[in-house]
Amino acid sequence: MEASTRKLWLARQTAERGITFEDEIRPGAHYEVAVEHEGQIWVSGQIPRVQGRIVVTGRVGEDVSLDQARHAAEVSTLRALAILQARLGCLSRVARVLRMTVYVQSSAGFTQQSEVADAASALLYGAFAPSGGHTRTSVGVYQLPKNAAVELDFVFALAR
Amino acid sequence: MEASTRKLWLARQTAERGITFEDEIRPGAHYEVAVEHEGQIWVSGQIPRVQGRIVVTGRVGEDVSLDQARHAAEVSTLRALAILQARLGCLSRVARVLRMTVYVQSSAGFTQQSEVADAASALLYGAFAPSGGHTRTSVGVYQLPKNAAVELDFVFALAR
Amino acid sequence: MEASTRKLWLARQTAERGITFEDEIRPGAHYEVAVEHEGQIWVSGQIPRVQGRIVVTGRVGEDVSLDQARHAAEVSTLRALAILQARLGCLSRVARVLRMTVYVQSSAGFTQQSEVADAASALLYGAFAPSGGHTRTSVGVYQLPKNAAVELDFVFALAR
Repeated sequence: MEASTRKLWLARQTAERGITFEDEIRPGAHYEVAVEHEGQIWVSGQIPRVQGRIVVTGRVGEDVSLDQARHAAEVSTLRALAILQARLGCLSRVARVLRMTVYVQSSAGFTQQSEVADAASALLYGAFAPSGGHTRTSVGVYQLPKNAAVELDFVFALAR
Repeated sequence: MEASTRKLWLARQTAERGITFEDEIRPGAHYEVAVEHEGQIWVSGQIPRVQGRIVVTGRVGEDVSLDQARHAAEVSTLRALAILQARLGCLSRVARVLRMTVYVQSSAGFTQQSEVADAASALLYGAFAPSGGHTRTSVGVYQLPKNAAVELDFVFALAR
Repeated sequence: MEASTRKLWLARQTAERGITFEDEIRPGAHYEVAVEHEGQIWVSGQIPRVQGRIVVTGRVGEDVSLDQARHAAEVSTLRALAILQARLGCLSRVARVLRMTVYVQSSAGFTQQSEVADAASALLYGAFAPSGGHTRTSVGVYQLPKNAAVELDFVFALAR
């Protein structure tokens, strides 16, 4: 995919979900949303925040359905891609996705963390086709910041 | 250790536990079991799956004993090593183990996550002697995919 | 900051909290506290242990207050910095902090994992000024080894 195509792809994915991250992605007082160093870019844990609001909160399997959790995982992934695009100028600079870790705020007995992660994997796969394959780990945690349903972090390798 | 010795070592470790990963390790629809890039190989989170079945399920400290959890950690580690061997041809290409993260599906009050991880550490140490030392993090999570008792992921550095 | 200034900074931070890590940081039987390889140094998960004792134990939001959890995160971070200083000779060899992951042993309904992580972020930021910005992920887990209130791990990049 060419750079302009990838940019359109990302714009379409966010538009289809009725979300925008415009003017929203800011680092904390002492940390960064992304750090680039010697061919790798590490992205901080992303929760499904849009325009300052966490769009999916609660415990998956109890307050939150599998479909809602998958949507939350997509929003978090799109946030990461928006961060990358803002930082790199262009998603085409990414050579490989080294790792995605998917934390799902789970209820007792909810065991479909992989199915939540699948939604994020499909997006990543599309964003970086034909090199969108990536490793991933998905686990069910007890609590997440701000009662977010999911949190995802990423490590990318850049083309040299 | 020479390449052939390492291959025998891995075959013996799996045989001793009565397990085989033959024809079993397949990527998901959109993700990979391992990604190699510029001298690192990242391995996806491994649960103790053998021939399609999760061999240790349940909550450690409640349904699952410490010994069973240690066995589950070994099986997950051997899966990662089988993935490496299939991908690299030979475990000798690994220069260092940069990180192992051990997620233990824990009951309330179970605090021996390190003792679970020790079983995996001993295997890694043996597999890559004399350079098998590695960093690790072990935590107790609330739920794991498919009710697996443990999940482990890895980052390896390759010899150049 | 010069090397000697950074060393003093670390000594002051530990002294202010009345702690010392002298003769205490030892690897496990099969794993290491840190592994350095090709410009990265990975540090194992650190719990708030001082002179063999875990100084903050219990569940944050229930047994442990936010302030106590923040202190625990600082102690774990200072342990990591002490490990780095011992290993590298000097914190000035660190070029960037690629990742900090903060695991908080949380009670049901505790959602201030980010506020716990903020205490660790402020220390990291100070230790490596003006390049102390870093990525981070903070999650609430169900149990931690030895009932520690927090566990933190780190990936650093070294100046070449």
